[in-house]
Amino acid sequence: MSILVVGSVAFDSISTPHGKVDHCLGGAATYFALAASYFADVRVIAVVGEDFLPQHEAVLTARGIDTRGIETAPGLSFHWMGAYAGAMNEAETLNTDLNVFADFEPKIPAAYLDSEYLFLANIDPLLQARVRNQMPDVKLVCGDTMNYWISAHAENLAKVLRELDVLLINDGEARMLSGEQNATKAAAKVLSMGPKSLVMKHGEYGATAFFGAHSFAGKATSRPFRAPAMPMAEVVDPTGAGDSFAGGFYGYIASQPELTPEVFRRAMFYGGVMGSFACERFGTERLQSLTREEIETRFKLFREMSHLAPEI
Amino acid sequence: MSILVVGSVAFDSISTPHGKVDHCLGGAATYFALAASYFADVRVIAVVGEDFLPQHEAVLTARGIDTRGIETAPGLSFHWMGAYAGAMNEAETLNTDLNVFADFEPKIPAAYLDSEYLFLANIDPLLQARVRNQMPDVKLVCGDTMNYWISAHAENLAKVLRELDVLLINDGEARMLSGEQNATKAAAKVLSMGPKSLVMKHGEYGATAFFGAHSFAGKATSRPFRAPAMPMAEVVDPTGAGDSFAGGFYGYIASQPELTPEVFRRAMFYGGVMGSFACERFGTERLQSLTREEIETRFKLFREMSHLAPEI
Repeated sequence: MSILVVGSVAFDSISTPHGKVDHCLGGAATYFALAASYFADVRVIAVVGEDFLPQHEAVLTARGIDTRGIETAPGLSFHWMGAYAGAMNEAETLNTDLNVFADFEPKIPAAYLDSEYLFLANIDPLLQARVRNQMPDVKLVCGDTMNYWISAHAENLAKVLRELDVLLINDGEARMLSGEQNATKAAAKVLSMGPKSLVMKHGEYGATAFFGAHSFAGKATSRPFRAPAMPMAEVVDPTGAGDSFAGGFYGYIASQPELTPEVFRRAMFYGGVMGSFACERFGTERLQSLTREEIETRFKLFREMSHLAPEI
Repeated sequence: MSILVVGSVAFDSISTPHGKVDHCLGGAATYFALAASYFADVRVIAVVGEDFLPQHEAVLTARGIDTRGIETAPGLSFHWMGAYAGAMNEAETLNTDLNVFADFEPKIPAAYLDSEYLFLANIDPLLQARVRNQMPDVKLVCGDTMNYWISAHAENLAKVLRELDVLLINDGEARMLSGEQNATKAAAKVLSMGPKSLVMKHGEYGATAFFGAHSFAGKATSRPFRAPAMPMAEVVDPTGAGDSFAGGFYGYIASQPELTPEVFRRAMFYGGVMGSFACERFGTERLQSLTREEIETRFKLFREMSHLAPEI
């Protein structure tokens, strides 16, 4: 099954207590695509500048990712500078240069039109809606957003939310979007805005899924599901952990014949697994060279560290 | 099996977005004892003032709790005033009147000396140590503390930590005690201070157990265990949730013939269950009238909302 992701392919300059990297390959679509590539075919729509070289593209193509939808425009690629300190739960953005991304007009190659799964990474909701409208027959639509779009582009975002099968956001974004402090109330309000289900990410504490009345074709459950994250001694660089979670989550769903409640739950575990790998090295380094065996081993670890023995 | 708990029996005046209560029965030992009483025999050592009336004692004795170790001193009982706002994750202490608690000298009734399980609730570590020394033959010692003792009584606390089989503290306390921001590093450092195991409570996100090299008689596992908390739409009053967690956790352990890794894991689930009940009403109200069936139903819910289907 093929996943089409639209989002940013960018360069990041990151500083953490473990060191610094300058202009390493990053961007939501990059992390998502690499993480999802271990489970499904991935196709990327993005725009890059002339500083995006064959060696950068090779990072994606080496993982079998279809890059025909990555357009090159005159100028420089999107560049983000950020720093993490202390518990490293939140990045401090030092600088954002949109560069060619400022005029991003997603174009869907004809070869991508048969994609069954659509992921709208964190970009302008107007662009998310435009892509979604050009892909009316996809099986599932999953999306992300962030505080900037929630506060300054609420109307455009509202249109996108109505189209989503799964919205993936973190605690703070859910509170901002709903105006509710309590996570359960925030989830109910977010679901009332349209998404059929909501995956609320809690960083080092894992993630909780909430299901609306119409989530995945009548197989709804009103009960939330909580997946753990792995306590990690060495978080080298948390950049892209959320996008990698989304890639593992959605990639696993796309790899299964049907989206059952159990597939959804397992997908959350795979999301946590890929998010945890992403943090182990700077940038996308760890996501470039995983094996499916390493992924399965960590999946088992996640299961063991959160599961009781079966009832006798 | 009998649990001996030493700690505060107090009155709380609490304000939350759901209302206010004045002078309701509270205190760490009270919450702990009520929660643990659904699993094991509980004996309390505390001091109260003349405002502690038969109706207050009856709350404990109605649950079969042994109150012979609750001494009455001239004056008023410990009184805490606190308020919660917003996400209600942390109380703002408005006032603390130690009253008779200021001169608390725990005395262990002869009838309590055969207690197999000792719980040192959050009190002056000097008193914790004194009680622990008078109970040299207990099977297990579990304890709690808080930021005040960590910062201002570090030396006395260090002596208590060396005596503990299980230390139960929250994220912030673990960070303060260890000086480490990262939870895994904080856990390792706390374990190096003496406790054989550490249960780090994450509030609405559940709790993680970390095990030292010598935890429960050689059956150590180096792998942490993560138990969920239940997403709750109505947190009426979080006061005592941590003590109720401890009561469910330790009560379940005391109800089992042996402390195996699986018993420890299940105990964490029962801790979360009792903590979630505590938040549903003001003060100890919800903990006074539970049934074992309600507890088992919620335990199953915790399991279902965090467990994948068994591997085929």
